[in-house]
Amino acid sequence: MGPVHLTLDEVRDLARRCLEANGCDSTNARAVAATIKRAEADGSAGHGLLRLPGYVASLRSGKVRGDARPRVSQSAPSVLRVDGHGGFAPLALKRMHDDLVALTRSQGIAAAALVDTYHFAALWIEVEALAREGLLAIAVTASKPAVAPTGATRAFYGTNPIAFGWPRPGEDPMVFDLATAAMARGEIMIAARDGHEVPEGVGLGADGRPTTNPARILDGVQLPFGGYKGAALALMVELLAGGLIGEAFSYEAGTNDNKDGGPARGGELIIALDPAAFGDAEGWQGHAERFFGELESFEGTRLPGDRRYENRARTPEEGIDVPETLHRQIMSLCDG
Amino acid sequence: MGPVHLTLDEVRDLARRCLEANGCDSTNARAVAATIKRAEADGSAGHGLLRLPGYVASLRSGKVRGDARPRVSQSAPSVLRVDGHGGFAPLALKRMHDDLVALTRSQGIAAAALVDTYHFAALWIEVEALAREGLLAIAVTASKPAVAPTGATRAFYGTNPIAFGWPRPGEDPMVFDLATAAMARGEIMIAARDGHEVPEGVGLGADGRPTTNPARILDGVQLPFGGYKGAALALMVELLAGGLIGEAFSYEAGTNDNKDGGPARGGELIIALDPAAFGDAEGWQGHAERFFGELESFEGTRLPGDRRYENRARTPEEGIDVPETLHRQIMSLCDG
Repeated sequence: MGPVHLTLDEVRDLARRCLEANGCDSTNARAVAATIKRAEADGSAGHGLLRLPGYVASLRSGKVRGDARPRVSQSAPSVLRVDGHGGFAPLALKRMHDDLVALTRSQGIAAAALVDTYHFAALWIEVEALAREGLLAIAVTASKPAVAPTGATRAFYGTNPIAFGWPRPGEDPMVFDLATAAMARGEIMIAARDGHEVPEGVGLGADGRPTTNPARILDGVQLPFGGYKGAALALMVELLAGGLIGEAFSYEAGTNDNKDGGPARGGELIIALDPAAFGDAEGWQGHAERFFGELESFEGTRLPGDRRYENRARTPEEGIDVPETLHRQIMSLCDG
Repeated sequence: MGPVHLTLDEVRDLARRCLEANGCDSTNARAVAATIKRAEADGSAGHGLLRLPGYVASLRSGKVRGDARPRVSQSAPSVLRVDGHGGFAPLALKRMHDDLVALTRSQGIAAAALVDTYHFAALWIEVEALAREGLLAIAVTASKPAVAPTGATRAFYGTNPIAFGWPRPGEDPMVFDLATAAMARGEIMIAARDGHEVPEGVGLGADGRPTTNPARILDGVQLPFGGYKGAALALMVELLAGGLIGEAFSYEAGTNDNKDGGPARGGELIIALDPAAFGDAEGWQGHAERFFGELESFEGTRLPGDRRYENRARTPEEGIDVPETLHRQIMSLCDG
């Protein structure tokens, strides 16, 4: 048996059906399925169907509410509080979007704090959506402990991604979404599944020693990218997505989680900025386009996110291949 | 002749006298001298007296106004625009401080865009000042091209630091200030001066090949920390401190600069957040203190910025040693 070929619509429908068979209402299932489809469309299998068994597990264990109704309120003139109501993040992000766009346009800069939510996807989706509204966006989230602080051999930080988006006229926004871990956990999971080694510096085994074996790293601990600087950024993400907004730090999320294999409860902070409010309302986009042009004139350079857009252009026609074992696992979960 | 020993007050007075002898009015000279003193106090010689000849050069060349009167205005309900009036950054930052604190407290989040200013110091000073007001702060600035994009061998990005501060009750704020370059340029300058090698990965020589010779890197190009991820963050800093606020990207700053050895004209973006506006007004500080306690319980870990505070506790009594050649150079500049 080889991999199973699916169109992107089949990915979405499979995810939705599987979530609904396990206690998600259609509103939440649709939001999560759209997120899974977008990950697969962009070639980010680590955030795609691979996560579906985890989503299902956290519905079955009763940890996550499949019928969550996120609520958006304003906690200060430029700050939104998004109460996820114990559900998955995609619906909370969707509910928040228009309010954050409007508030940012009126205030120049605004923040949204997502709490009581279960995040199991990439950050670029919301950051890109905000950039398509003509806004800059920065998003961070913490998660379960996976990454050792500098000098330590046990996990304390989450993989703590930082995502950034910049709007471009007539072009896809420039968007990056980078784990402050040396490698995203989803990528290590895929390397382990496919029997590939990972580069040195990605992590340590359970014995605290360096290894290039992804399975041993998943049992051990990941390392931050770029040494103490990456670790400092991981620390910043903890403070923004946990301490600032009153949500769990990664170490707390790890302690509180029921270890069902799904996401832990956590927070997300999004900061959005409207370039029109910063002084150069007419010229800012052309100015930045000249900058991108200059950057792309360097041999060997490309803009962050370009590969995802290339995948996105290709996958609607080509579809994707799902490993047979994953597909079989998902099909069995669909039976509820 | 050995190094010249100075107290911190002597550092400040020397800097001030030297700046005033070269066209700085006393308001600007005081602000810059205070910044130089603080760098030396914190053990950051790369941002201390070492920069004084550059400050003086840019006064002598007429590039920087020694009599600048920065003005603060509001460009949106949560955005300040700080016009540096062609002067050094320290006075603009000082003028901005109270307004940014007040705006952040009223809005929950606020930003300040510094333009038409010449930045030649570290970012932690302002970030720490905001954290001492009980606010979180993030600051970024771009500068002259010094760092190659991933895959390239020519400079395009500045060293583009990111600074972050978090307020702590009864403790110094947690503050980091990290160049997205693998090593801060000031540190490479000191290594070159003192004849030390730098680690691999810090930069390339003018021939585009890796080297550990700091002088060759200063003639060649620095590299971002952490590979493509550090480069993505350097790109973000360009867009925040240049594109967003209508100031020069590093490559433009490099082209426009008169190469007098002083700072290039550039921008800085500061984002400040008031934790009281984010939902957990009572508990956020205790929550974060437990997090810091947990982190410090890991063997081998310490908080970013701790070394600076240790230096700061020691230098008022001990004073600092200034290399004899630098001291002689400064003394000759004082004659105007």
